[in-house]
Amino acid sequence: MAEKIPVTVWGATGFIGGELMRVIAGHPGMEAVGAISRSSAGTAVGAAHPHLRHAYRDMTFISADQGEALDSPLAFLALPHRASAAMAKRLLGLGRRVVDLSADFRLRSAEEYLKWYGVEHPCPELLGEAVYGLPELHRGEMTGARLISGVGCNATSAICALRPLVKEGLIEEARIECRVGSSEGGAHGDEGSSHPLRSRTLRVVSPFVHRHAAELIQELGLPGEKFTMGVTAVELVRGIQCLAHVTLTRAVKEVDLWKLYRAAWSGEAFVSATPAKPAHLRIPDPRFVMGSNRVLVGFALAEDGRRAIAASALDNLMKGAAGSAVQSANIMLGLDETSGLDMMPVYPA
Amino acid sequence: MAEKIPVTVWGATGFIGGELMRVIAGHPGMEAVGAISRSSAGTAVGAAHPHLRHAYRDMTFISADQGEALDSPLAFLALPHRASAAMAKRLLGLGRRVVDLSADFRLRSAEEYLKWYGVEHPCPELLGEAVYGLPELHRGEMTGARLISGVGCNATSAICALRPLVKEGLIEEARIECRVGSSEGGAHGDEGSSHPLRSRTLRVVSPFVHRHAAELIQELGLPGEKFTMGVTAVELVRGIQCLAHVTLTRAVKEVDLWKLYRAAWSGEAFVSATPAKPAHLRIPDPRFVMGSNRVLVGFALAEDGRRAIAASALDNLMKGAAGSAVQSANIMLGLDETSGLDMMPVYPA
Amino acid sequence: MAEKIPVTVWGATGFIGGELMRVIAGHPGMEAVGAISRSSAGTAVGAAHPHLRHAYRDMTFISADQGEALDSPLAFLALPHRASAAMAKRLLGLGRRVVDLSADFRLRSAEEYLKWYGVEHPCPELLGEAVYGLPELHRGEMTGARLISGVGCNATSAICALRPLVKEGLIEEARIECRVGSSEGGAHGDEGSSHPLRSRTLRVVSPFVHRHAAELIQELGLPGEKFTMGVTAVELVRGIQCLAHVTLTRAVKEVDLWKLYRAAWSGEAFVSATPAKPAHLRIPDPRFVMGSNRVLVGFALAEDGRRAIAASALDNLMKGAAGSAVQSANIMLGLDETSGLDMMPVYPA
Amino acid sequence: MAEKIPVTVWGATGFIGGELMRVIAGHPGMEAVGAISRSSAGTAVGAAHPHLRHAYRDMTFISADQGEALDSPLAFLALPHRASAAMAKRLLGLGRRVVDLSADFRLRSAEEYLKWYGVEHPCPELLGEAVYGLPELHRGEMTGARLISGVGCNATSAICALRPLVKEGLIEEARIECRVGSSEGGAHGDEGSSHPLRSRTLRVVSPFVHRHAAELIQELGLPGEKFTMGVTAVELVRGIQCLAHVTLTRAVKEVDLWKLYRAAWSGEAFVSATPAKPAHLRIPDPRFVMGSNRVLVGFALAEDGRRAIAASALDNLMKGAAGSAVQSANIMLGLDETSGLDMMPVYPA
Repeated sequence: MAEKIPVTVWGATGFIGGELMRVIAGHPGMEAVGAISRSSAGTAVGAAHPHLRHAYRDMTFISADQGEALDSPLAFLALPHRASAAMAKRLLGLGRRVVDLSADFRLRSAEEYLKWYGVEHPCPELLGEAVYGLPELHRGEMTGARLISGVGCNATSAICALRPLVKEGLIEEARIECRVGSSEGGAHGDEGSSHPLRSRTLRVVSPFVHRHAAELIQELGLPGEKFTMGVTAVELVRGIQCLAHVTLTRAVKEVDLWKLYRAAWSGEAFVSATPAKPAHLRIPDPRFVMGSNRVLVGFALAEDGRRAIAASALDNLMKGAAGSAVQSANIMLGLDETSGLDMMPVYPA
Repeated sequence: MAEKIPVTVWGATGFIGGELMRVIAGHPGMEAVGAISRSSAGTAVGAAHPHLRHAYRDMTFISADQGEALDSPLAFLALPHRASAAMAKRLLGLGRRVVDLSADFRLRSAEEYLKWYGVEHPCPELLGEAVYGLPELHRGEMTGARLISGVGCNATSAICALRPLVKEGLIEEARIECRVGSSEGGAHGDEGSSHPLRSRTLRVVSPFVHRHAAELIQELGLPGEKFTMGVTAVELVRGIQCLAHVTLTRAVKEVDLWKLYRAAWSGEAFVSATPAKPAHLRIPDPRFVMGSNRVLVGFALAEDGRRAIAASALDNLMKGAAGSAVQSANIMLGLDETSGLDMMPVYPA
Repeated sequence: MAEKIPVTVWGATGFIGGELMRVIAGHPGMEAVGAISRSSAGTAVGAAHPHLRHAYRDMTFISADQGEALDSPLAFLALPHRASAAMAKRLLGLGRRVVDLSADFRLRSAEEYLKWYGVEHPCPELLGEAVYGLPELHRGEMTGARLISGVGCNATSAICALRPLVKEGLIEEARIECRVGSSEGGAHGDEGSSHPLRSRTLRVVSPFVHRHAAELIQELGLPGEKFTMGVTAVELVRGIQCLAHVTLTRAVKEVDLWKLYRAAWSGEAFVSATPAKPAHLRIPDPRFVMGSNRVLVGFALAEDGRRAIAASALDNLMKGAAGSAVQSANIMLGLDETSGLDMMPVYPA
Repeated sequence: MAEKIPVTVWGATGFIGGELMRVIAGHPGMEAVGAISRSSAGTAVGAAHPHLRHAYRDMTFISADQGEALDSPLAFLALPHRASAAMAKRLLGLGRRVVDLSADFRLRSAEEYLKWYGVEHPCPELLGEAVYGLPELHRGEMTGARLISGVGCNATSAICALRPLVKEGLIEEARIECRVGSSEGGAHGDEGSSHPLRSRTLRVVSPFVHRHAAELIQELGLPGEKFTMGVTAVELVRGIQCLAHVTLTRAVKEVDLWKLYRAAWSGEAFVSATPAKPAHLRIPDPRFVMGSNRVLVGFALAEDGRRAIAASALDNLMKGAAGSAVQSANIMLGLDETSGLDMMPVYPA
């Protein structure tokens, strides 16, 4: 086997940082040589990530200074917004490549960033070269890129569910809702994420306009007035189910939608259309992809042929974050795109 | 205190039968003198309902014959469809009043029953006098009635969420979805209701046409082509959250919708509109009414004033079944409508 | 009906404060005239406790100054340790009676308080008159008392499980473990109580020595070296199941243990022994008492007659906190002991 | 890469069958060429195991006759007890090797089988050559074996927790309890495994004598009178946590126990001792190994040095079933023991 490429993970104590460490631990072509954490430098990786203790037995978190000093061609950033962009700039200046999982490089326009995130972009000069980190849409631009963004997990679920319809110009209007698990909120949630309050809740957050809508507008070319996007927090740790209630621009037949869905993602290693039968599997359940980089997409069509539900399911920490990031990095580095990402979903769990 | 009215519960081992027993155990004006169960006659009530053992310490389930022989003016039926109608007819013939929680007397037309339930109605001659068991809509017809139906739990959640809009002619189209707990499926569910498969699932059942739609058409006068109704099984034992994505017939202002919602349920003891603030409480969570007969209704309105989410939350075993049944029986028998139904919701739980 | 006694609740935004408000809302002899909260004074009670909004529609939280000014003979304190004792002293000085749900007045000795809580007791002069707030043990001292403590929820579960054996001198050694829900940690838990980390965990806390052991030593007279007491955090919001693996001092027969258990709690309104059959109900499940003030106790005996499991189940916010407090207050005030506490458990939920 | 060895999975629709299919799908040295199911022959593998649809896209379940006809040197049996032994005999007769995950070949004595399972063993003549399927104990006998049993999942958890103490003769008495998830009951559970009843339960099953005790007696040489073994069903789908309250034969020091635990499993690829710090990680949580073949073992020692808690955590479908089976098969077939079993645990999930 060829030597592994040494990579670093920044913000390595969080859930996304931990998931990056998990994926890289099983990756045949990468090795995590540094896990950077401002708050936990000096403590064992296994204390923050007890499931990975055997894989990183002697590794401790290190400081940013130590991280910069490491000889590593690629850095994954799982840092807070704005801090991430600043660190990306610094590391690019040191000649490193960067996959930045924050929201800082997802939008191509500094104006849009200001509009959706409410702050000025810290380094707008980098927006031009950043590639949106969904390989299924931007594979070609990734080879040799210096800077790739991560993806919004909810945005990814909606893109996967709706893209087959958008490509055919079939969307007159869509009401998108994502049902999401608690790991989306990170390890340091607010009071609402405490177990007694979050447990079994059905809490509707931002019923019409979620920040990730900006990524849909950009990546799907779907005008903002044509859709709403809401999120419901449900009893789940990992996973997103996207359900989009769509009004189609014209009546269609079910068989034609099947063709669209199968064709849209044909050849993709990680995206599959659900089977038409049995019926209860058509709208995918995130349990079926848990722990893996897979996405399931499916739909249901009402008798009138005009009203449809477009749906998807994914693991927000994998395809919605660390999985897509490693997939993008694989392309960036010239590795096999699926390398390290072939873990099977764990079900039932 | 006046003497309690002796009542009987038929199908008393199931979840709805158990919930009737629970409500009646705390009711100041009713007493359960018979718990009828074909399969469990002779065994202790506390064995099937361990939470009620102290309340029914020496009571055992009895057979239908024993149940008929009891001197009791009112029977609650929690029997399977069709068996329920036959028993209702028999008990009415014996001079008893009946609240039938099955679907047999919810629809006023035998044709509709055949259409939605796929079988001939066993006693269509009784459909004319049966009253739909939602006191908020049919209070006046209940006093002195002989036969009152139960309500569909999902139908009730949708009726409560949508009625303020329907009354004003505001619904152009609605996509209704109910997120439901596992107790809806009863104690003897199929394989899909086994814990390993049902746990944390997001399983979309009947995405567009749920049987309870028939009750919406009848009770709201909302034409079937104007709405779809789907159900998602979520990780919850008790509770329904109804979310209806509505397109309004005209743009409205939020303040006017508030007035509508407050006015529509004004004076109702068990239905409340959610507060406008804090925002996370506007769309109600079924956890806030768990164990009680209460319904919360609320809405959210998009900036364009045309797209709305109408919502409700209730406990399917209470307001969606046993609670509404006892409330109806209270009226039928001349008791205070809220008698025995003032239990507070249990939260957090 | 006689006029209701006006009471105040201090620390009213927390889970125990909320549960006190819930119980009092349905109490025929008490009325909450003040809900005191330092942090939330001026905001609506219904914003912190959305399940109680209908019961306290126009009430807002008030400051401590406002609370002191109210004309109310009884205060329930759900404040942090030490702050609670100070406030108790102050209110007693104003001529109020106090039920203090903190740990400050559970132990009769200032030395023990220092040993177990690591700080000096703020007002040891009050320890002499404080009554331990478990009516089943101290009913006689409660009538007319000025100061009653709350109970440790885990201590209560262990006391209920073990007392029948202790009274007979049957305990040679006990390994007590309490499986507890997340509401025990309060609304503002630490990182470990965040949903992603707390969900479905089996986290063993303090495997041998839990603080509540001090209450067992005091109330059961069971020497500390004879037992260990650990806690496991399980997937539950409300509820405690206590399982004590006991070695008996002599071999006994099952029928004799049944007699002991039934006799020990005979005549108690809220404590019941489980049935011998069906077998799966012998070791009680906290689900069977959820939302109520009830305790179930049971046991299992190995063939050798020397090894037993003594068990109990209760709702930590009710019998383990607010329920016992109201029960104690009822006695203190000369009301019926069970007043306001006859709510049925909610099951399945 | 060398050609993959073709294997068959019998009883392939159940949870253990599905987990075998999942592990084999990612195994570099094995390939599932037949998935046998009496009830589902002819239907798609992906219909029963939606998480594996992409891995077995064109595969359907086949009948036993079809299974026998396949040219495959090794069969995994996940069949009901007794049916499994009969099929094992048949397949051995055809020259196949067998790993039988039922309980039929775990005990070496037909008398013990009769005692614990209540029926005569169907083919006692095979008991002599069957190897108990825990490689950590029987690695040496597995190379070239014809017949290897599976392991009891609860037995495995107890063996891993207690073996370091047993080897040193330190166990005077042990009270073992396993907290187990619902997948242990299989896909077709009884009423008690329905979601509304099983959800969040703390149901104590067989408080003193669990069937798997037979495996402990045999494999640890621990006399039956020295321990009890109970099981509590908890809110979990996958996972077992074993907690054994142990009285040691002599007082020991913590540092010496650490040495014992580390030494006992030293060199094992899948078993690790927990760290001494941070304290909350000492008693392992099954969440930390979920989806993997790993076992965590740990302990806590009381101040007196005589009372200890020995603990372990594993995934019942992996190390407690399919994982150990594949690990055993690897040795049997001369493959690397860890082949196909290096998946990382999925956490948080």
